[in-house]
Parts: sequence; C-alpha cells; structure tokens
Amino acid sequence: MNTSPIDMLETPAAVIDLSRMLHNIARMQQRADDLGVAFRPHVKTSKCTEVVTRQTAAGARGITVSTLKEAREFFAAGVTDILYAVGMVASKLPAALALKQSGCALQIITDSLAAAEAIVAFGKAHAERFEVLIEIDTDSHRSGVKPDEPVLFDIARTLHDGGMVLAGVLTHAGSSYDHDTPDALVAVAEKERAGVVRAAQRLREAGLPCPVVSLGSTPTALMTRGLEGVTELRAGVYVFFDLVMTNVGVCTTDDLALSVLTTVIGHQVDKGLAVLDAGWMAMSRDRGTAKQKIDYGYGQVCDVDGTVVPGYILGAANQEHGLLCRAASKEGTAGLEATDPSPVETDIAERFPIGTRLRILPNHACATGAQFAQYHALADDGQLSTWSRFSGW
Amino acid sequence: MNTSPIDMLETPAAVIDLSRMLHNIARMQQRADDLGVAFRPHVKTSKCTEVVTRQTAAGARGITVSTLKEAREFFAAGVTDILYAVGMVASKLPAALALKQSGCALQIITDSLAAAEAIVAFGKAHAERFEVLIEIDTDSHRSGVKPDEPVLFDIARTLHDGGMVLAGVLTHAGSSYDHDTPDALVAVAEKERAGVVRAAQRLREAGLPCPVVSLGSTPTALMTRGLEGVTELRAGVYVFFDLVMTNVGVCTTDDLALSVLTTVIGHQVDKGLAVLDAGWMAMSRDRGTAKQKIDYGYGQVCDVDGTVVPGYILGAANQEHGLLCRAASKEGTAGLEATDPSPVETDIAERFPIGTRLRILPNHACATGAQFAQYHALADDGQLSTWSRFSGW
Repeated sequence: MNTSPIDMLETPAAVIDLSRMLHNIARMQQRADDLGVAFRPHVKTSKCTEVVTRQTAAGARGITVSTLKEAREFFAAGVTDILYAVGMVASKLPAALALKQSGCALQIITDSLAAAEAIVAFGKAHAERFEVLIEIDTDSHRSGVKPDEPVLFDIARTLHDGGMVLAGVLTHAGSSYDHDTPDALVAVAEKERAGVVRAAQRLREAGLPCPVVSLGSTPTALMTRGLEGVTELRAGVYVFFDLVMTNVGVCTTDDLALSVLTTVIGHQVDKGLAVLDAGWMAMSRDRGTAKQKIDYGYGQVCDVDGTVVPGYILGAANQEHGLLCRAASKEGTAGLEATDPSPVETDIAERFPIGTRLRILPNHACATGAQFAQYHALADDGQLSTWSRFSGW
Repeated sequence: MNTSPIDMLETPAAVIDLSRMLHNIARMQQRADDLGVAFRPHVKTSKCTEVVTRQTAAGARGITVSTLKEAREFFAAGVTDILYAVGMVASKLPAALALKQSGCALQIITDSLAAAEAIVAFGKAHAERFEVLIEIDTDSHRSGVKPDEPVLFDIARTLHDGGMVLAGVLTHAGSSYDHDTPDALVAVAEKERAGVVRAAQRLREAGLPCPVVSLGSTPTALMTRGLEGVTELRAGVYVFFDLVMTNVGVCTTDDLALSVLTTVIGHQVDKGLAVLDAGWMAMSRDRGTAKQKIDYGYGQVCDVDGTVVPGYILGAANQEHGLLCRAASKEGTAGLEATDPSPVETDIAERFPIGTRLRILPNHACATGAQFAQYHALADDGQLSTWSRFSGW
C-alpha cells in the first residue's frame, strides 16, 4: 500500500488544493484584466507569503491588508505597495509612520474629518506625506461617507490642504454577501461602481485630485458587467472560495481550495453521528451559511481526496469535537434545514469507521484559515508543501 | 495626565483582569475542597502557563487538556500529571507514546472497543502501559458509552486484560450549558454524578479496577449539591468566565476576567453605530448567547476601566470591524432581541468619539482567547504583564 504525504499529517490540519487555488487566482486576475483595471488582492484571507507570491506572479499590483501586522509581515517579505483598508485612527499612526519610513508605499484610508485631521497633524509633525484614500459607503454596509455627503469635501480638503497625498476613493460592497441571484449581484456591483465613481467625479469637479478609484468584493468583482471610471479592483476570499461563496453563487464546491483534514475518533450510533477531531477550534465558529440557501452546519464533508460526500455535513461542533451527521436533503443538495430533523444514519460506524480521514470544506475560508499556523499545500501529484501563515495584530 | 500601561497597548488586545481571575480560581478550588474531591482544571480555556501556574498554586492536582499540543506545551513547562480528555485514536498514539517516554504521567480516554484495541496493540508493540479512562455519556451530549451499556465491560476488559492501566471513568455534562435555572443545573449535575458513579460501580462489581471517577463542567461543578462516589472534578471556562456563563447563571459580569481592548475608529451616525477595531477576528465568531436569555451580539461593551456600559453591545462584526450599537432593553438588562429593532443612538459620535478605548466582554472566553497570541494581565495597580498563549495542534 502506498502512503501518500497527506496520510502522514497529524489532524486536524489545513489543506490547500494547489491547483484549485491557482485556478481561482488566474480566474480573478483574468477578470480584472478583462475589465481593464488593476487588481489588488486582499490578503487577509490567507495571511501567507506563498499564496500572495502566486497572486502577484499572476499579475496583481500591490496588496490590500486588514491589519498593520499584515502590512509589516508582507513588507518584510518584499511587498512594497500596500493598502491598509481599515479606517486609520490616531493611535495607529506611529505604526504606519514606521512602515513609511522603512520604504513601504503604504496607503491608508479614512471616512471622518476627525481622523483626517489627526493624520494631517501627525504627518506634519513627522514630516511625512501620508497617502490617503477616502472610504465611500455605497451600500450602507459598514463604514464610509456617502458619495453625496458634504463631509466628503471637508475630508478631502483637510487632507489635500494639509499636505497629505489625496490618493483617491475606495469602497467595498460587503452587502453583496447577502445576495444569491445574478440579477441582485449585478445590481449591487453597479451600485458599488456608480457610487465610488460619483464620489471621484465630485472631488475632481471641485478641483481635487483623485487618481485612484478602488472597489471590490469577491461577488461583485465576479458579477459586475463593467467598471467604467474605476482604476482598481479588490477581492480576497476568491483565492480559496468557501461554502458561503458557493451559496452566493460565484463558485461551486469544486472550486473550494481550503479544507480541514480530520480523523473520525468515535460514534454515537443511536444518533447517527460520527465524532471527528475537527471541532470549532479547527473550523472556526463561523456559521455564515446558517441564513443562506443551504446550511452546511460547520462544513461539508469530503473524503480524504477532497471529493464531496453528498448528504453529510459537520452538523455541530465543540472545541475539539465535530459531529458528522446526515443532512436533511433539499432539492437534491446536501444541506441542513434548521426545521428538518436530520435522518439518523444507523450504519454510521460502518460508513465512517474510527480512524477514517476526511476533509471538511469550511463556511468561511478567512475564519477557518485563521485557526491554523500553517497550510499544507497539496499538489496534484500528492506532494505536500508546508506554508506558514501568521495571525494577530 | 497620567498615562497608564493599558493606554499604551495597541488594539485590539486581550486583557485579563488579574484579581477577577484569581478570585475565580480561588472560588472553584474552594468548591472542590468543600466537595472533598481533587480538582483538575481544563486548560484549553487559557492555553497559558502563567494562568495554569496560578491554578496549580491554588491547589489543582494535574491538568486536563483538549489537544496533545497542550500536553506537550504544559509538560515542557513542568506539569507532569496530564489528562488528554478527547477520545484517543490510533494515529495519535505515537505522540502520546513520546510524551509517556519523556516522563509525562499522561492519561488518555476512549469510548470504543476499536480504539481500546488499538491502544492495547500499540502499547504492547512499544512495551508501554497506557493509563486509560473510559468516557461515560451521562447526558447524550457528545461522546462516551452509557453507564449501563454492555460495551463498557468489553472496553474495560480489553484494556485491563491487554496490560493497560484501567485508570477509571470520566464524564462531562456539556449539556449543562443549555440550562439557566438552579433547579435544572442541579438536576444535570446529579445526573452527571449518578451516571459516572454507576459506571464505576459496575466495573468494580465485575472485579475491574476503577480508581478514578472524574466529572465536571463549570456549571455542574458550581451547582452540584454533592459528589459522593466521585474522586475528581474538572472545569475550564470558570477561570475567565464569560457572557454565556453569565446567562447560565453561575457568574455575573463582574466576574468576567477576559476582555478585548478596542478603539473607536469611526461612526455611522444615521444608524447609531460606532465602528470598533475589534471585529470577529478579535472576538471570535462565537455567538453562544444568541439562543440564551440575553443576546449580547458579539459582546458587552465596557469602558476602558472594565465597567459595563449598560445598554451597549457589539451588535455585528466583520473581520476587523465591530459595530457598537444600543441594544434593545429587556427587563432592564442590556440585551439584543433578534425581533426588536435596536433604538438608534443619534449622538453616538459624541458618546463614543473616535479614539475612545473600550473593553468588550466576550460570549465565550475559550474562543476569544484563542484569537490572540498573548494576554495582557492587568493588576489592580494598573501594571500590565504580557503572558504568551499558544494555539494549534
């Protein structure tokens, strides 16, 4: 019997299907190329240099980060063009300054006059011209100023007149995750585009510079019909995709590049459950599919080769225990309906004997990846490479 | 103006209120002492040597772990008496053997004949007498054999006759988390006690050894009326407590020792939201209070000194953004009702200006702690100590 490298991994472990990941990277880069915009991947999904190297090799220009630690780590790994896409606040300016002074072409963002004033004051005090984008709210999702709000000018003039580099505008239509039909996604994408372009136009009409017009989320990036007026596209989770994105409708389970390798450690035969060593510490507590078309519990069960085992999900999870069960069927797909009792699988112990190794597709790749300090990248020939990932702030 | 050490921390950061933690440790140890049993804390909550040192100093005898990495880390830190309380499986036996051969008094558990046979075969092959407890299911929660199942004897005889050390029985009434009245908790605790004692009696009546009778969960440990027949108590989350335990009714928010320090980075004034730099990456995705009496969203808001700010919770979270909002009031307490729209706080920007530092009490201390690589232990005099914690497998 041949033992492949994956059989030697201790479980639970995070496995990346390398060819799926490369396919996802190529797909999104091609999309940006076709749309005529630069692509700046959001690397908060992987936090892994080996992943980002492949995104850059495919044509990405710069990266987007969600923490200044990501900026420091990727700058240390040789990436110089970095957009920190969470609102800057005074207490984080010293860390941003340190990056700038080290030679990092760091861009920061703001959506408030108070933060803009703090950036100007700190920049002047340290003779640093921060490059700042103004965050635009195009879908009432989370943060940003609305394209037509007067405060847009106040922020822009404060930055510009205060000697900072007014680099442009950016938006993120996070509400795209809440939709699951092509028409709705196209509409969100157009709203995202129109809103951020409108903000850019207003700034330019007022005589203010606005070279960068940046937008994106994985669903809108894949569904938009055009990006007129936009210069830059951003997306993150596409690199691995996940079950949430499958429900949104922008990928299939065959595209999902991240899974958690696990071992069957027991059974509750009377309840039709197999107990796995992947609980919520491995899968994360993310239940993003709970309110979607198909509720996958804590994940979709696959065999060790990554082939979906239809009808079986991780129905519940404790810290280090996952409970595999048969999911209620809905329109022929493997999903869990909160209202339907799961049918009991009486031969669960024969179907999944103790020691069986499985792979679980996660609801949310960003959350599941964050539970691990390394990925095991699996090539088509079965060879494994261990890639470290970082976490924290 | 005096600057205290906590003002210098970058956010988000995990803060431990040292005196609360020491109070919690003393309370549980006193409880075990009063009940006349040994206490073996579950260290999966903290994964931190400095925390465990204080549990041991208070009188704990040995520790419980949820991963073999925890066993290795704490053994390296000088703890020798370690119970790995997740069902053993063949693929993990080499790691268990390495610990035993290094001098660790490791106990392992099983609830299946297949695993017992694997332990015996591996133990014999490596001339190692593993100490094994049989896991008993006393509340249909997750795993274990029922006290009256015949397979109990098959497992016990396989281990005993196979030359392993049949160390005893253990159970964990995880269903205690689902209750919130003293009567219900007392009943679960008694069921937990009676079930595991019954299993021990059956083994002894059959002439098999059963020195250890181990049980526990934080709620049952605190609510049980007596532990006749039991030798050992286990509990984990009590060391920090959390909002889930507050809802269960075994602590108050004044007991909660873990919080996440965060900074206000923006507002959505029209929606009455303040945007924080603690999203789900800091808080974890755990929504354990969602189905309890009071739904705290992603956490209860406190001021920087740790005093609860009544009526404000972290109502929603993205990866690095948390949305602070006013919670719908319910019987005078600060909770979010899924059916009630939250009242809009129109002066949110004045109430929580940009740059304001807050602390957020988490739903689930085990999940939130796991998002951080260190804790900042805050003494009553304001001094901070940085304690590292580990994660992974």
